[in-house]
Amino acid sequence: MNFADTLIKAIDKKQNPSIVGLDPRIESIPDAIKEGKNPAEAFLEFNKGIINAVKDTVPAVKPQIAFYEQYGVEGIKTFIETVQYAKSKGMVVVGDVKRNDIGSTAKAYANAHLGEAFGLDAVTVNAYLGTDGVQPFLDKTTEGKGMFILVKTSNPSSGELQDQLLDDGRSVYQAMAELVNGWGQNSIGEKGYNSVGAVVGATYPKEAERLREIMPKTIFLVPGYGAQGGGADDVLPCFNADGYGAIVNSSRGVIFAYQKQGGEFDEAAGKAAQAMKDDLKTSLRKAGKWPW
Amino acid sequence: MNFADTLIKAIDKKQNPSIVGLDPRIESIPDAIKEGKNPAEAFLEFNKGIINAVKDTVPAVKPQIAFYEQYGVEGIKTFIETVQYAKSKGMVVVGDVKRNDIGSTAKAYANAHLGEAFGLDAVTVNAYLGTDGVQPFLDKTTEGKGMFILVKTSNPSSGELQDQLLDDGRSVYQAMAELVNGWGQNSIGEKGYNSVGAVVGATYPKEAERLREIMPKTIFLVPGYGAQGGGADDVLPCFNADGYGAIVNSSRGVIFAYQKQGGEFDEAAGKAAQAMKDDLKTSLRKAGKWPW
Repeated sequence: MNFADTLIKAIDKKQNPSIVGLDPRIESIPDAIKEGKNPAEAFLEFNKGIINAVKDTVPAVKPQIAFYEQYGVEGIKTFIETVQYAKSKGMVVVGDVKRNDIGSTAKAYANAHLGEAFGLDAVTVNAYLGTDGVQPFLDKTTEGKGMFILVKTSNPSSGELQDQLLDDGRSVYQAMAELVNGWGQNSIGEKGYNSVGAVVGATYPKEAERLREIMPKTIFLVPGYGAQGGGADDVLPCFNADGYGAIVNSSRGVIFAYQKQGGEFDEAAGKAAQAMKDDLKTSLRKAGKWPW
Repeated sequence: MNFADTLIKAIDKKQNPSIVGLDPRIESIPDAIKEGKNPAEAFLEFNKGIINAVKDTVPAVKPQIAFYEQYGVEGIKTFIETVQYAKSKGMVVVGDVKRNDIGSTAKAYANAHLGEAFGLDAVTVNAYLGTDGVQPFLDKTTEGKGMFILVKTSNPSSGELQDQLLDDGRSVYQAMAELVNGWGQNSIGEKGYNSVGAVVGATYPKEAERLREIMPKTIFLVPGYGAQGGGADDVLPCFNADGYGAIVNSSRGVIFAYQKQGGEFDEAAGKAAQAMKDDLKTSLRKAGKWPW
């Protein structure tokens, strides 16, 4: 099935356009889990607990590979096992890997992450190199795979390059958005959305409004909600009037919720995921963008 | 030691400003090496053969991690063992990983690749996210580590975003070059060069000339020589008048030389590395840019 359709189906099933970032940090893993394990082993047990706690509420998870790479081979093993576990629980898995390279090398990345080795449903991609670095990922859309391309990122200094104004009045991120919109035209699913998504930070709602116009049928992956400062109202412009077109990520705010709210880490994560859904529901309903 | 000084010292020792890309492809590995091994094991034996063949001629190697990631955990194991082997032979090792993310995640990448897990001397970085995504890598320059940031890449479609003109007359890649030049000011070594390098494709010599002016003391990592179509004359603008400031990469042209020239793969690679050195020497000498 077309990736956009797979994702929307999963969102419909949970009635929840959100995604949980699996970004484990050893200092934030409960001691009881760390005991007698190396960090990679602890990450895996932690992730399984989180996945079990959120799988009935949340349609997708987004493991951030950087945190796993820190532990070398063992870390990558945990990353792959996390992907497999989440898929076995019926979740869509987006690898936050931000890979990018020239064509022949990008093909190796696409094979690695969307193929057998890592088995992800979709990945994040940095398209600073243009079409030929993206093409190998686009080629995978015919196999039901997808991607989210960095357009306007959530971090404070994202504007240094992305906000630069071009001589035709567009910004760099708007130029990127037009490329992304074009790349998506060959993978349009039944719902009208396509498999070439965009990363658009919740921390820049005004920019998101304009980006929604430039990429009308692109699914936005929206980081920056929660720990990074974005609220549910900030993500509204990322959604279309039909209530689709975006999936909002929270990482620390869900997986480490126990640190603020106490209790068991998995229960706290489950509650935080539910609270995030409720929060999004309230804002989206008010805006007439809740489709269920 | 400051990374720029380490690299220049290695270049001086071999009197050769070149670097060999370790980008193994299973279909191009000799059958005798593949026999009885999985691809990751074959890659390691192949890489060791290449490293042994070029180590007396070439100062540095650049393993491209995408090719290793294709084989999951086993591939990463080979990547790490390749890094260790090359370092044990006295080579500088630049990981072509093009990592990038927001600050807290970029820190995990910097720890992973420039720290214990992967142990690289330097990495390539994509700076589409601006300063806060680069800072964790900059922080590692005080530990003798370095980086090469994508400025003008060698691929055909690099211009789609990188060549866009800003309203102040600069191109996007020139704006990136100015950022890179700024980021390098805190890691200037004894030779005047700094630890924050730039990736500048050999396939765009005219652009390189202007970039040399914008980043006078930045070391350019120059892909695109050989298989991608760049010749020794094309890389001349990447070098300063003192004959320093660039290191030219060849991957396929060296490591798979046996496919064109016959003979044993390692001997052919050694000869190709020597031929590349001679080729650079001839052009640089003619231009008065050969320092030895």
